[in-house]
Amino acid sequence: MAEEVVLLDFWPSMFGMRARLALAEKGIQYEYKEEDLVGGKSQLLLKMNPVQKKIPVLIHNGIPVSESLIIVQYIDEAWSERYQLLPSDPYQRAQARFWADFIDKKVWTSGHQVRSSKGAEQEAAKVEFMDSLKLLEGELGDKPYFGGQNFGFLDIAFIPFYGWFHTYETFGNFSIEASCPKLIAWAKRCMERESVKTLPQQHEIYDFVLHVNKMFGLD
Amino acid sequence: MAEEVVLLDFWPSMFGMRARLALAEKGIQYEYKEEDLVGGKSQLLLKMNPVQKKIPVLIHNGIPVSESLIIVQYIDEAWSERYQLLPSDPYQRAQARFWADFIDKKVWTSGHQVRSSKGAEQEAAKVEFMDSLKLLEGELGDKPYFGGQNFGFLDIAFIPFYGWFHTYETFGNFSIEASCPKLIAWAKRCMERESVKTLPQQHEIYDFVLHVNKMFGLD
Repeated sequence: MAEEVVLLDFWPSMFGMRARLALAEKGIQYEYKEEDLVGGKSQLLLKMNPVQKKIPVLIHNGIPVSESLIIVQYIDEAWSERYQLLPSDPYQRAQARFWADFIDKKVWTSGHQVRSSKGAEQEAAKVEFMDSLKLLEGELGDKPYFGGQNFGFLDIAFIPFYGWFHTYETFGNFSIEASCPKLIAWAKRCMERESVKTLPQQHEIYDFVLHVNKMFGLD
Repeated sequence: MAEEVVLLDFWPSMFGMRARLALAEKGIQYEYKEEDLVGGKSQLLLKMNPVQKKIPVLIHNGIPVSESLIIVQYIDEAWSERYQLLPSDPYQRAQARFWADFIDKKVWTSGHQVRSSKGAEQEAAKVEFMDSLKLLEGELGDKPYFGGQNFGFLDIAFIPFYGWFHTYETFGNFSIEASCPKLIAWAKRCMERESVKTLPQQHEIYDFVLHVNKMFGLD
């Protein structure tokens, strides 16, 4: 049976980018369906992810899988004969999952606050955001990738945030590279990969955020 | 080499219970170390989980694994030759992970609010809590376990909440069984298993919550 793979996504989403990266690294052909999250969600999205009603959703031969980290693991397991995303060692797998979960809980949340709050709240968010990045820089250490010699699950979970770094830095008036030079060197290393090159650029995401803020009357 | 397995835990924690269940189902001998979370965290916990500083932490031959769902997956993968917790089919694995994640995001959060808020906030939390349980009851359907014929990953992720049901019901003045009879039948079925029988009883958890509330001057 020919594989039918569809991705419901929204181009600036770091969570959607994770699914795109996993599919690209595995060399899987798929149909990309852009959701208009500002205008309104499609009937297909509401049908395929009725519980969370969120992108990304991967539809594989008609069956939907939701939540970005679960999608990446699904892709790794369903196409297990191709380039391996998760490490094979159980402890390394647990570590990769731990830091990916940490990114969702800490980096996303504090990054969102940096660009959507002001004053003392924003200052606190900046501290939490940078503390989180420093912990991730410590986890990276001197390895070329979080996955060691190979670009893997945790790299996929984190590199989509690089496209958002300029937005966070501009809204928060700070420099990530000044505190986390190794992390930026890692990001630039990742950007040389074919799969990562095709992700949205920092200025595109910044323009998108300005556009949405203007649309909703936020300054 | 003899396996050295230690669990840092706190007895009423539903997250800690998940680790206990996975270890019991696999038949793994381990040392249980109770953390005094009300009195203060141990140096061992702070050393073994410096990022989140939370129980449960599984220490396997000196190496720590944190976050309950990651611990359960680690146990399944590190002792892969024993009773299998996650299904083997990639889609079924993704589904089990999706609902476990849903429990952490929705059931835990709304359940916590039911017992810690009042008035309109509590009423809203009750609606969200019961809506979440109804979705889970739908996912269970007529299967004996969430894992189908076998007690598995999602059963382990969810059954620890049963010990808290009486607390939620008493604080919120409502009946879970009235709306979700199949879920309660599933819970009672699980309670017949040796691993589940040893978990804290509903009245013990309720007494613990009353004790803590009294200690902190909450009524």
